[in-house]
Amino acid sequence: MADAGWPGCSKSLKGVVLDMCGVLYDSGEGDGVSPSVEALKASDLQLRFCTNETQATREKFVAKLQRLGFDICVSEVFSPAPAAVAVLKERGLKPHLLVYDGVLPEFDSVDKTNPNCVVIGDAAEKFSYQNLNEAFRVLINLEKPVLFSLGQGRYYKETDGLKLDVGVYMKALEYACDLKAEVIGKPSPMFFQSVLNDMGLQPSETLMIGDDLVNDVGGAQHCGMKGIQVRTGKYRASDEKHPTVTADGTVDNLAQAVDLILGQRGH
Amino acid sequence: MADAGWPGCSKSLKGVVLDMCGVLYDSGEGDGVSPSVEALKASDLQLRFCTNETQATREKFVAKLQRLGFDICVSEVFSPAPAAVAVLKERGLKPHLLVYDGVLPEFDSVDKTNPNCVVIGDAAEKFSYQNLNEAFRVLINLEKPVLFSLGQGRYYKETDGLKLDVGVYMKALEYACDLKAEVIGKPSPMFFQSVLNDMGLQPSETLMIGDDLVNDVGGAQHCGMKGIQVRTGKYRASDEKHPTVTADGTVDNLAQAVDLILGQRGH
Repeated sequence: MADAGWPGCSKSLKGVVLDMCGVLYDSGEGDGVSPSVEALKASDLQLRFCTNETQATREKFVAKLQRLGFDICVSEVFSPAPAAVAVLKERGLKPHLLVYDGVLPEFDSVDKTNPNCVVIGDAAEKFSYQNLNEAFRVLINLEKPVLFSLGQGRYYKETDGLKLDVGVYMKALEYACDLKAEVIGKPSPMFFQSVLNDMGLQPSETLMIGDDLVNDVGGAQHCGMKGIQVRTGKYRASDEKHPTVTADGTVDNLAQAVDLILGQRGH
Repeated sequence: MADAGWPGCSKSLKGVVLDMCGVLYDSGEGDGVSPSVEALKASDLQLRFCTNETQATREKFVAKLQRLGFDICVSEVFSPAPAAVAVLKERGLKPHLLVYDGVLPEFDSVDKTNPNCVVIGDAAEKFSYQNLNEAFRVLINLEKPVLFSLGQGRYYKETDGLKLDVGVYMKALEYACDLKAEVIGKPSPMFFQSVLNDMGLQPSETLMIGDDLVNDVGGAQHCGMKGIQVRTGKYRASDEKHPTVTADGTVDNLAQAVDLILGQRGH
């Protein structure tokens, strides 16, 4: 169990998981890191992508990245909506959805009549008083209310400013109904485990690279993976002295992380 | 300190505080209890009214009750908005308001330029994604963010169903900004104390009658007052075996409470 530190651990790695927004691209800037993705793909490492994006289907999201020059396909991308669909089917639950219109097609295969649970995503403008009331009434009328939240983010940055994220509305409904939501997506261990399962790797063989210290780095570490933070996206200088989460390494950007990893492996 | 139980304590009472919605009237039914208010007024007891209503000014609210036949005037009514105005002025704070339009006139005398705090009330339909984002951005840009919440209710009942109350949005903003709101209104001890101050009475001389076990009864008891619950309004049978709050007495309605109180006092 002699765990090598970062970047020494790179030698024993078999897989890398990349967060997308803030790592692959940053507020619209797409170039600069696509060669890093190509370099990882050309290596003997397995590569997966992992996002809490819930405003679009993976198809749409991946198409956008392909247009930005990324070599990426839908089956490599893990996002909360398909993970939620799997959970719903496994448990025979029929959801009332409060999600962004763009992600609705992910739920096409799910029976939504007579809902017996609620799923909320980053619904943005759809988080109206009326829509939140509707979700609340579904929950409060259930004998055993179940709320799934696609992520638990507080807020994110768009070109026109900070926007409230799904976690805020999760807390609202938790308080209204006196319940605890089940979070699907990062930092849920189940979510990271599904990526590991897909790669057929152990946590100790896998490295997560993200810009979100708590959800990317902390979530991965909680599963036994290594977690590296990039100084792009939602990175803040204060992350480097965070009270509970310490990244295994911090790098300026994805390109630097990939250089270090592949350099250690003698590429 | 030989505290008589209920209704025995009635003999030593000097004042009664009544919650309004759910006690004086219940989903539109106004009659039946206005004679009880008259009987209290005709007694030697002081009487005040105390509400977490934040959708209208006290003037409008009282006018509605007068039309329903209640002998009641504005100076007898304590509600969160004027209490908030007093706190804002005392602390030199300028609020960004996220409240129902009907209550805005209560804040007429307050400087709202360059806000350095946020006040939220039961804003109902005004709790849009955009408006909540605006309040959030004010808070997150303050060096020391201050959030006041006019009450902390989870939900209330209207003729067309259950509606989310201000507490739900308080929790949302608390999570978004990683802060703790200051609650103004029931069950805040400061709020009950302001009613006691107005009557010039000690808590032990005063009885609160409400339909909300936690906010009315529990809040009053926390201040040293006695708290009686009526089985009207938002009363639920489960309140009578609540894990943390036990009313000093439970009665079917205000009329029964007043009969018992005045009966004990030999009226």
